[in-house]
Amino acid sequence: MHSTYLRTTTCGDLTAANINQTISLSGWVARSRDLGGMTFIDLRDRYGITQLVFNMETNAPLCEIARTIGREFVLNIKGIVTERSNKNPNMATGDIEIVVSELNILNTSKLPPFTIEDTTDGGEEMRMKYRYLDLRREPVRKNLQLRHKMAREVRNFMDSMDFIEVETPVLIKSTPEGARDFVVPSRMNQGEFYALPQSPQTFKQLLMVAGFDRYYQIVKCFRDEDLRADRQPEFTQIDCEMAFVEQEDVLVVFEGLVQHLFLAVKGITIEKMPRMTYHHAMTLYGNDKPDIRFGMQFVELTAITQGKGFKVFDEAELVVGICVSGAADYTRKQLDELTDFVKRPQVGATGMIYLRHNTDGTLKSSVDKFFNEDELNKWSAAFDSKPGDLILVLAGTAAKTRKALSELRLEMGNRMNLRDKNTFAPLWVLDFPSFEWNEDSKRWHAMHHPFTSPKPEDIPQLDTETGNVRANAYDLVINGVEIGGGSIRIHNKELQAKIFKILGFSEEDAQAQFGFLMNAFEYGAPPHGGIAFGFDRLVSLFGGSDSIRDYIAFPKNNSGRDVMIDAPSTISEMQLKELAIQLRDK
Amino acid sequence: MHSTYLRTTTCGDLTAANINQTISLSGWVARSRDLGGMTFIDLRDRYGITQLVFNMETNAPLCEIARTIGREFVLNIKGIVTERSNKNPNMATGDIEIVVSELNILNTSKLPPFTIEDTTDGGEEMRMKYRYLDLRREPVRKNLQLRHKMAREVRNFMDSMDFIEVETPVLIKSTPEGARDFVVPSRMNQGEFYALPQSPQTFKQLLMVAGFDRYYQIVKCFRDEDLRADRQPEFTQIDCEMAFVEQEDVLVVFEGLVQHLFLAVKGITIEKMPRMTYHHAMTLYGNDKPDIRFGMQFVELTAITQGKGFKVFDEAELVVGICVSGAADYTRKQLDELTDFVKRPQVGATGMIYLRHNTDGTLKSSVDKFFNEDELNKWSAAFDSKPGDLILVLAGTAAKTRKALSELRLEMGNRMNLRDKNTFAPLWVLDFPSFEWNEDSKRWHAMHHPFTSPKPEDIPQLDTETGNVRANAYDLVINGVEIGGGSIRIHNKELQAKIFKILGFSEEDAQAQFGFLMNAFEYGAPPHGGIAFGFDRLVSLFGGSDSIRDYIAFPKNNSGRDVMIDAPSTISEMQLKELAIQLRDK
Repeated sequence: MHSTYLRTTTCGDLTAANINQTISLSGWVARSRDLGGMTFIDLRDRYGITQLVFNMETNAPLCEIARTIGREFVLNIKGIVTERSNKNPNMATGDIEIVVSELNILNTSKLPPFTIEDTTDGGEEMRMKYRYLDLRREPVRKNLQLRHKMAREVRNFMDSMDFIEVETPVLIKSTPEGARDFVVPSRMNQGEFYALPQSPQTFKQLLMVAGFDRYYQIVKCFRDEDLRADRQPEFTQIDCEMAFVEQEDVLVVFEGLVQHLFLAVKGITIEKMPRMTYHHAMTLYGNDKPDIRFGMQFVELTAITQGKGFKVFDEAELVVGICVSGAADYTRKQLDELTDFVKRPQVGATGMIYLRHNTDGTLKSSVDKFFNEDELNKWSAAFDSKPGDLILVLAGTAAKTRKALSELRLEMGNRMNLRDKNTFAPLWVLDFPSFEWNEDSKRWHAMHHPFTSPKPEDIPQLDTETGNVRANAYDLVINGVEIGGGSIRIHNKELQAKIFKILGFSEEDAQAQFGFLMNAFEYGAPPHGGIAFGFDRLVSLFGGSDSIRDYIAFPKNNSGRDVMIDAPSTISEMQLKELAIQLRDK
Repeated sequence: MHSTYLRTTTCGDLTAANINQTISLSGWVARSRDLGGMTFIDLRDRYGITQLVFNMETNAPLCEIARTIGREFVLNIKGIVTERSNKNPNMATGDIEIVVSELNILNTSKLPPFTIEDTTDGGEEMRMKYRYLDLRREPVRKNLQLRHKMAREVRNFMDSMDFIEVETPVLIKSTPEGARDFVVPSRMNQGEFYALPQSPQTFKQLLMVAGFDRYYQIVKCFRDEDLRADRQPEFTQIDCEMAFVEQEDVLVVFEGLVQHLFLAVKGITIEKMPRMTYHHAMTLYGNDKPDIRFGMQFVELTAITQGKGFKVFDEAELVVGICVSGAADYTRKQLDELTDFVKRPQVGATGMIYLRHNTDGTLKSSVDKFFNEDELNKWSAAFDSKPGDLILVLAGTAAKTRKALSELRLEMGNRMNLRDKNTFAPLWVLDFPSFEWNEDSKRWHAMHHPFTSPKPEDIPQLDTETGNVRANAYDLVINGVEIGGGSIRIHNKELQAKIFKILGFSEEDAQAQFGFLMNAFEYGAPPHGGIAFGFDRLVSLFGGSDSIRDYIAFPKNNSGRDVMIDAPSTISEMQLKELAIQLRDK
């Protein structure tokens, strides 16, 4: 299949069936062993590794050359496939070796800064600077092959469902709503700028107005945000939209996509996915993306714990805890660690109360002074705890306490080994609030985005109970990671204008920024809705890693730099001049 | 298949087999006819058109509503599939109509600025401003469906050949070589800029160094050029690269891709493609992308026409012509038109000589005064002309005359109807020169790009006969349009450095801009080569149009503007400040 002028086969193809064939191969020197009389070279390409053998007795001149060849040299050889005396059952080509008759050094190599092996990577900085060498390592290449396979399976599924892939523009218009845009100065329209899309949101909605009915795109998006480990300034989205649908239609189609991907890529059957409202997710897990691979659902103790003289509980808006099965043997030291954990600023609790349900059935808490056995039995009953369980309780203001307990729950999930990377627990989270109040800007922000339709039954409360209006919005969560999110959109100009007003847009601003969309709604916009999946994150989830960088060929670092090509970089004064911009004085 | 809450089927699905079924449909009002007692509405969606019928006798209230409904309203109806008395064999759904029992107006529509029909488009400006309405027209939507289908077939083929699709970055580094870059100011690295890629050239080469072996990508690329009708600031490329190959390997694989596309998309079998050297293309067609759907190859007359006293020929570096079969009956007026044509500044000839080979066998030329019958017989012999042919001759400096004659040849191809849009004549053009001299910058430019390998046998002449060095470069031309181009790349640091030197790069510049690539070459770069196809142009060729804009969902106009969303646009002072740039005073 890969026969070219430089090879008749690849380093992953030859087996005992090829013995006695004359073949040619090209690849890199992965390893070489000079045993005096014989020299062995492992030749590597994308497809595998094949052992070459050179013999001083039968071909001394060639063997002498082979002895001088270093790691990562590029060779082209001709030889005969021979049965190995010392077979390697762990290698696809382990039954054979090649007795080389012709050797052509296609290129030499300096000593690489790290050895190209599965387990050596020279550290993050070195890997990124020499990414072309890092990518030679099999685990890294496999990550990108997984990405390719997943993109292909996404397309297979979407095509089979009659979705049309449409390319939307990359040079668009800057809109201040949402995250910060990357902008591109226009030379032909001086003083004006394009923006790179944060998502193709408005274009996919226009495609629905245009009657495209079912659209998708695997597409690069851009956000100029301060970066965290799992964020990149450019990232890839599976972007989808459907017309003439309600929420249920969208959920069914994309549950199908997720099931297809798990089956086609990992051979895993995913059953009908559970659904949970945002309200339940927050109440039971303190988190709008709960990891439901394990239980430890929140149990609220406020009612049964207040008025017993324990000030921390009495003054708390919420007393809430989790029950950890099989952790009753936690030592004082371990419990102190947990207390330290919840007190970390990122977690934000002020302390932690525990109740140990000992294996002998007795109960022991850190607040025995305030709660007698009867009271503690009520706690135990609330959690339905069993001997051997450990109950951990936090108290304080509701939102902050839930957030802290969610972190503690995930920590306990890790400690109890309940978060297996090979178990996948998808979940739909539904009924998000439409708006959240932003204290900094003193205005309502759209929780999803400004194009999201409120639930029709909540529309009458838009002005009176803005914070309680629920959106026709949904997130797909897998193992505690938000993999996708979407909504049914507004398709009515008046409602869209009303939402912009609630979000603090003046009529002029709304018109200037989104006039084209609101105008489009006047020419027969159909009901429509969609979803977008974070493709980098989905691939890393399938690959079993927390870092999306491992699944991006040429990622940027936390300062937004590509250290391999050294970008961004300065540009010439002539370029600046043509663009009619200049640098500001520092 | 498309059953949702808002429809059980689509407007393209129902046939006589569905008669008596109760169905629901959603779509747009394409047309409505109020016949008094009955009202007919053609309901349109992406899949087709279905006729709805409302009857005053059986359901007067509903029929009254139907009479008020305007074009492009969005309807959801329920009804019974009924046999039509007046069948329409030209429509997939022409055997049936829907007797409507429930009618739900999902959205109203203002009167569109142009009627949504195949043949009405309101003119280019209106189409682009209301692109979401233009896209509702079937021919426009079909163009984008063709694009989707072609992208799918490209991926099917490339996947079947073991190519891996890898996403390369969009935020890269600006390099002055080649066309002008779009740049993106970096907020996190103030004073520095990313550039948008003109192509993923260096990244795909690094993927070869990384051992990816076979890479492809359907990818957006960007060029900040002054725009012509067939250029867009952002365009899409099928970008491919292979390792361990020579030119022949690349040609074979991508000839296969082109054959696959023609067969899968258009049902056309493409035979083995002819090949032609650049030298032959220029000599025989005056053009490095000859349209070989028709002959009219150039015949040089310099030797047999000089020294006869005709100054125009005597002073010319080249006298060259074409023979147009069946055009001997061209009138004086038509010949004058052709003379005017070649004298247009874009064509650039100073005049045109003709020789008519009359149907009675006699020869008549515009320069009978200088050339007697014997001499004209020599011309006729050179062209192997037949009675009925018309020979057209230009003279002047070689390059300019060839270019002008190439234009005249294409014009005659058009006039003689030899350029049928449904005939496809692919051609490989090979052996391009490596360099061309640029008079403006007084230096050599790379004809393909600086990474192209010269032919090994020409490398010794790099310094001595720079202009005669041929590249291992190839173009795919179909019907006179350059559809793809590629080359075998340099994989050796010294040769790459040498080429940069010939192109006028200082060692420092070469290192600053392409150091990462040259460094990569030191760690075992394999021989490699590839090709890139202009996807927009390929789709428009398949679709039978000259304009790539017809195959782009949201194209920009000749000023680089998206007139629908009004981009580019000004951005806020705060955005400029965060990016540490400011506008220059005009």
